[in-house]
Amino acid sequence: MNTYMAVDVGGTQIRVAVYPEEGIKPLRVKKVATVGEGTPVERIIATIHAVWDAAENVMAIGICVPGPVDPQQGIVFNTANVEGWVNLPLKRILEDEFHVPVFIGNDANLAGLAEWQFGAGRGHKNMIYFTISTGVGGGVICDGHLLLGAQGLGAELGHVFVQSDGNGPPCGCGQRGHLESYTSGTGIAWYVNDELSRGRASSLAGKGKVSAKEVAQAAQAGDALALEAFARASHHLAIAIVNYLHIFNPSILIFGGGVSTVGDLLFQPVRESLAGMVFSPAYLENLELVPAQLGDDVGLLGSLAVARMGTAD
Amino acid sequence: MNTYMAVDVGGTQIRVAVYPEEGIKPLRVKKVATVGEGTPVERIIATIHAVWDAAENVMAIGICVPGPVDPQQGIVFNTANVEGWVNLPLKRILEDEFHVPVFIGNDANLAGLAEWQFGAGRGHKNMIYFTISTGVGGGVICDGHLLLGAQGLGAELGHVFVQSDGNGPPCGCGQRGHLESYTSGTGIAWYVNDELSRGRASSLAGKGKVSAKEVAQAAQAGDALALEAFARASHHLAIAIVNYLHIFNPSILIFGGGVSTVGDLLFQPVRESLAGMVFSPAYLENLELVPAQLGDDVGLLGSLAVARMGTAD
Repeated sequence: MNTYMAVDVGGTQIRVAVYPEEGIKPLRVKKVATVGEGTPVERIIATIHAVWDAAENVMAIGICVPGPVDPQQGIVFNTANVEGWVNLPLKRILEDEFHVPVFIGNDANLAGLAEWQFGAGRGHKNMIYFTISTGVGGGVICDGHLLLGAQGLGAELGHVFVQSDGNGPPCGCGQRGHLESYTSGTGIAWYVNDELSRGRASSLAGKGKVSAKEVAQAAQAGDALALEAFARASHHLAIAIVNYLHIFNPSILIFGGGVSTVGDLLFQPVRESLAGMVFSPAYLENLELVPAQLGDDVGLLGSLAVARMGTAD
Repeated sequence: MNTYMAVDVGGTQIRVAVYPEEGIKPLRVKKVATVGEGTPVERIIATIHAVWDAAENVMAIGICVPGPVDPQQGIVFNTANVEGWVNLPLKRILEDEFHVPVFIGNDANLAGLAEWQFGAGRGHKNMIYFTISTGVGGGVICDGHLLLGAQGLGAELGHVFVQSDGNGPPCGCGQRGHLESYTSGTGIAWYVNDELSRGRASSLAGKGKVSAKEVAQAAQAGDALALEAFARASHHLAIAIVNYLHIFNPSILIFGGGVSTVGDLLFQPVRESLAGMVFSPAYLENLELVPAQLGDDVGLLGSLAVARMGTAD
């Protein structure tokens, strides 16, 4: 029996699943903490061995990583979430160990690939997937191809200036005024904490540093500052989305990631403002804005998708 | 002998060229004014007939149009430069007349395709072509594919907000703060004329409405206002370019169009500012910024490229 090995590397957890040649129901799944005895690479290797069945023919290993990678060379450039991964030749290490082809991708890119092949994006040829959580990432399908770029560093959809005077809020990447600095959970919480430190009245005052989740709860309860934080996030998301419509002319936008689960609080203002911001109404004809469908499995399914694609040629 | 018919439709001129099956040296070229006796469509048809040789086997007609088109359906949505072209089924009209396949594209997209296949972008798989003239347009190659989008409306690289507070300068499309509103010839001239109308001192004062060409000449001569207009154009171009690097991770940026011929006046500040604006130096490794190579023939060569591509399947 032919199988595929999918690996989802997160800052907290490493997940490995064995999938059959078709379908998306895993045969076996194993999870371990990313940090523990041995290095993260050793822990990945041990977990793959643990689910490896010598009676099966493993066609390939797919692996998604929370940071920029070179998918051709199979190198992880760096990742803030896994200690010590700088210019790590992860593809070579795993191929030397397992003697099967290994395909690596950035987690947001592969999540987009998964939603396109198995989730909300099925049937579309031009699709943009946004993941809005701690950061803002993207996965783009252009005319049926995953956008990677010359070194695999494309589709960094959160790292575009939506405020360009140099005085925007700080982004995790070190720049200011990026979409991520407004619309990520980090950016939403940063704004509220910054306003609270200036003495703004809010039901969130006096609680110490608040999280994006607490801001969302306060917004649902009608807190003016929390609502303002989400309005600000929505406004800048709409600016970026309109730019992406003009750049990519997609037929569907898919939103995943923890912050996106707030739903209308974030997206209703976006939907309402797009018509006034596109330069032709044609960009909105037949355009769908939908939530992601694959939930927590999106990383594994992205790794599965890239492994199957890599062996399809 | 197999040949290809290439048609370049501009607001001023219609050019038709017959090309052989390989190479980019035309066998015959004919130019007519776009406006004159008969409609522009009739004038295109007559010009094609004039160069058509019944002894040759015309494989396909390629045609580039100065406005948004649906390349699948072969419909011109609209164009400011050709009177009366609204939802024009140009592909069907020409196929009914000539009984060969017709392939249509937006002029900036096809110019990008031409530079990729025949010009400065040869050998690159991820390329961005900017045309900076009256407006700002783009043509993008992603992983060896021309970016078109769901309806062919993608790669509108001039119509992205680089100033998003709603108070940016007016863009030709009706929005404010787009790249085109700062960096096009129209945008550069608009700024100088606006400043002059407020009484700014300049060697250009008192000459009535100035053109971008006059601003460029004044800048080369050291006029402070003219230099400021180009610095402003460069600054906003750099913002857009950095966003595009993060979005597309190209290995080459190619600049065409009349305004781009000013050279360092526009591009030196861009080159100098990119390093401080990318979120990883990897985006600039091996990145080339170069002028376009194909000059005035770029439209015909784009039409040739799309005709050859269309019949290659």
